[in-house]
Amino acid sequence: MALADRWLLPEGIKELLPPQARQAELMRRRLLDLYNTWGYELVMPPLVEHLESLLTGTGRDLDLNTFKITDRISGHALGIRADITPQVARIDAHRLRTEGASRLCYCGSIVHTHPAHMLASRNPLQAGAELYGHAGLDSDVEVIALMLETLHLAGVNESLTLDLGHVGPFRALVRQAGLTQEQKDQFIELLQRKAMPEIEAFIATLSLDDALHQQLAMLPRLHGTLDVLGRARECFTHPDACQAVEYLMQLAERVQQRYPEVRCYVDLAELRGYHYHTGVVFAAYTPSYGQALAKGGRYDEIGQDFGRARPATGFSTDLSTLIDLSGLTAQSEPAVLAPAVPEDTSLQQAVRDLRQQGVRVIQMLEGLPVPDSCDRQLQKQGDEWQIKPL
Amino acid sequence: MALADRWLLPEGIKELLPPQARQAELMRRRLLDLYNTWGYELVMPPLVEHLESLLTGTGRDLDLNTFKITDRISGHALGIRADITPQVARIDAHRLRTEGASRLCYCGSIVHTHPAHMLASRNPLQAGAELYGHAGLDSDVEVIALMLETLHLAGVNESLTLDLGHVGPFRALVRQAGLTQEQKDQFIELLQRKAMPEIEAFIATLSLDDALHQQLAMLPRLHGTLDVLGRARECFTHPDACQAVEYLMQLAERVQQRYPEVRCYVDLAELRGYHYHTGVVFAAYTPSYGQALAKGGRYDEIGQDFGRARPATGFSTDLSTLIDLSGLTAQSEPAVLAPAVPEDTSLQQAVRDLRQQGVRVIQMLEGLPVPDSCDRQLQKQGDEWQIKPL
Repeated sequence: MALADRWLLPEGIKELLPPQARQAELMRRRLLDLYNTWGYELVMPPLVEHLESLLTGTGRDLDLNTFKITDRISGHALGIRADITPQVARIDAHRLRTEGASRLCYCGSIVHTHPAHMLASRNPLQAGAELYGHAGLDSDVEVIALMLETLHLAGVNESLTLDLGHVGPFRALVRQAGLTQEQKDQFIELLQRKAMPEIEAFIATLSLDDALHQQLAMLPRLHGTLDVLGRARECFTHPDACQAVEYLMQLAERVQQRYPEVRCYVDLAELRGYHYHTGVVFAAYTPSYGQALAKGGRYDEIGQDFGRARPATGFSTDLSTLIDLSGLTAQSEPAVLAPAVPEDTSLQQAVRDLRQQGVRVIQMLEGLPVPDSCDRQLQKQGDEWQIKPL
Repeated sequence: MALADRWLLPEGIKELLPPQARQAELMRRRLLDLYNTWGYELVMPPLVEHLESLLTGTGRDLDLNTFKITDRISGHALGIRADITPQVARIDAHRLRTEGASRLCYCGSIVHTHPAHMLASRNPLQAGAELYGHAGLDSDVEVIALMLETLHLAGVNESLTLDLGHVGPFRALVRQAGLTQEQKDQFIELLQRKAMPEIEAFIATLSLDDALHQQLAMLPRLHGTLDVLGRARECFTHPDACQAVEYLMQLAERVQQRYPEVRCYVDLAELRGYHYHTGVVFAAYTPSYGQALAKGGRYDEIGQDFGRARPATGFSTDLSTLIDLSGLTAQSEPAVLAPAVPEDTSLQQAVRDLRQQGVRVIQMLEGLPVPDSCDRQLQKQGDEWQIKPL
């Protein structure tokens, strides 16, 4: 690598410089304090751990997105975490072993082998909250509310859209239709592309009875405003599918009651994280950004892979994206200059007092010019050091 | 890997659970706020970057301690950072390009292939501060002072020892003696073990004149309280060695004037980070912990490897070690219970108000018992929600 390139970061790897880094730090604090007031306890899982712990129950996408290394001590395969949620599930299942609900939150760096989309960073600063031990509306409403509060606190004030989905109808229908794993994967892929003619052709090859054929064919059409759920209820016959639709109706009603300004949108063919999620899935969008700002869902089965099944729901977001969108323009804080008379104990005391009050004081260094960031200075008046304009 | 082992962390990899994680978060904030009041701007360099950027000018130890991965996009060799200081030097040299002094600080996870010592974690939480653009006492005194303030703020209140060294005398003598790289490495290794008979034997093989022989032989003996520096001044003849001793004398005097309670200790054969450091080296110790709590030194040449030579001095510490030593016993914050009447807008408002005041409020979840952490509850009195004992 040439000398001139040594300081280039790898493609998609980003870093935060002053004053943006301080802004990220302050937003991190605001979010973690918010989660704290909601009863979510902070955890700090490690950057690297056994690959099997990181990937257990999470599916192929995360596997492909995880950098692998070999532990030189044990010879075991390790991974750099590409998602913190499975780590938090492991902590709930095995480290804490709480009997009732446990509420956990986190904020830390993750690394992806490939960016999630064209403009995405490969090292997002993931923040999120997870609620374990409760299956039902109360916990799903709580984490969706906390996700919306997160975006609000982060200064994303544009009109928000909440996308709601549920893996239930898809699961019920493909089980009833007896699809093989391969057929299921193909169907998911087609649904994600909303490739209508191909979907029709695919369903035709399955030779199903009319009712089931019709329901499968409806799946990619069931997206739009909340009245879609009414249509879905009429269309589905499988009790699991009907129950999922009923659940989404109640969930949407409770969210709308608390956040009437948020626009709800339903998509029953949204199968993001299908291998992972077991119930409702949700994501928040804003018009100026093409990707989800925050997303989450229910994933009741992951604990089982760690030997302890626990209901689970939660969400996560990328703090760096939120900072970009918040439009906050951070500036370096102006400072008070302290002159270079290092042995003066009264000056030392004055500087210490100011710093303890939170005032930024920069000590003059012999032979260097006054720093640009100083707009005031300490001057001795009689026996006292006072702040004067520079 | 057996099911039961999936949740085990790799040897030496540690994580922080509640309530310790919150304690770490609060200490992180205290330290970064301290650095902010001293004029140090926060930077957040990435967890992974080009191996050449991470290892430039840093020496073999860091190389061995760095996990390597291959970028699947570019095919380039990347590394997981094992030290943040070289990243900050890169940022100073190439991203900021400040002309005068630049003061930068950071706090983030690093990963080591091997633990630094028996009880060390392989994923320390490194915090530190670096000062670029000034060569001389003022900047070295400032970073040493900030290191001592860091330990003070972290609650390490036991008597502190500050170890002071300088690579100057060693460099001057081995240059004068014309040692090959191999001989130099061997000598360093012997000095680090303070293996006196072997050192004598080694020097004897060099066939030097008496004066130089004597000075080399003195090196491992020049450690102890500050009066060692007086002896060193009498012993050395090479001007660079004498200048280094003079520098240490002035430095120690200024540190002692500001921190009379800190015990200074000199060791002129302390060559920690020899390939990296160019002047004074320092470390802080406390009786109850066998390893340095924080350490640093001058490293004026690293910027050059990034194409821009800048004087540099700084220190770093491991936040997890500080938390262990601080003896603070964190407890989960007690919470107020909000009953499960989710549609009650007056309750929603009362909960929101309390949380905005920083009060922790936990929402009851249908079908679950009252959480242990709740010691008060919201009760409706007439039209108002009030906090009552639980």
